[in-house]
Amino acid sequence: MAYDSDNVFAKILRGDLPSERIYDDDYTVAFMDIMPRAEGHALIIPRTAARNLLDASPAQLTACMAATQKVAKAALIAFEAGGVTLQQFNEAPGGQEVFHLHFHVLPRHEGVPLRPPGKMEDPAVIKANADKYRAVLKSM
Amino acid sequence: MAYDSDNVFAKILRGDLPSERIYDDDYTVAFMDIMPRAEGHALIIPRTAARNLLDASPAQLTACMAATQKVAKAALIAFEAGGVTLQQFNEAPGGQEVFHLHFHVLPRHEGVPLRPPGKMEDPAVIKANADKYRAVLKSM
Repeated sequence: MAYDSDNVFAKILRGDLPSERIYDDDYTVAFMDIMPRAEGHALIIPRTAARNLLDASPAQLTACMAATQKVAKAALIAFEAGGVTLQQFNEAPGGQEVFHLHFHVLPRHEGVPLRPPGKMEDPAVIKANADKYRAVLKSM
Repeated sequence: MAYDSDNVFAKILRGDLPSERIYDDDYTVAFMDIMPRAEGHALIIPRTAARNLLDASPAQLTACMAATQKVAKAALIAFEAGGVTLQQFNEAPGGQEVFHLHFHVLPRHEGVPLRPPGKMEDPAVIKANADKYRAVLKSM
């Protein structure tokens, strides 16, 4: 399947849509999910075009995993989480909705299930959670 | 958190417990989940000790992602899947049950939800699905 550069994350990368960025390096960008399934739900994407895991290059996967690990470690501190769930969806039957490779980092607390998908969060809450990540990530 | 070499996947790596292996290379092993949440549910693990994403080395993550991508691509063919869901759990609150780093590859079909967790599959079904993977993976 081809890459469509009109997807939402491509627009975020170009600055055509806003996002609460929490981390970026030469190869990746991480920002808050606006429909969080857990407090501190973040997304990690490569700066370059990849539809999903199925067409990603080794370099893209390596860079994404390094950034994902960093965000996951930060999540434990920023949200006093007891664990992290990582999800990554490929093609619509696999759960993918935005067709730019992305990894979901979901901070988890014992006994707290994931929220149902699809509910937009208050932007002020998203920003406050991004600030928590940024405070931790700048010292990592 | 420390690595405990008595975990089930360490035993599988040592050959102390059986598994239906579908792929292996110098750094990783992939085998069938015995409690599949989708037909063709497979696991990819590093050969070396890592508790989860939080303590994994860059080399372990790179190797696991390469093998995971290979298994995911094979899943599309072997199970005529329309997509793949990737999951990876860290610490008990994050959903982790076996404390050796592992990536779940779940072949997906449109409209078919994941099965509830925890139900053991018939070994003959597991073997038949492993055979499907092996037939595809040997030519990749």
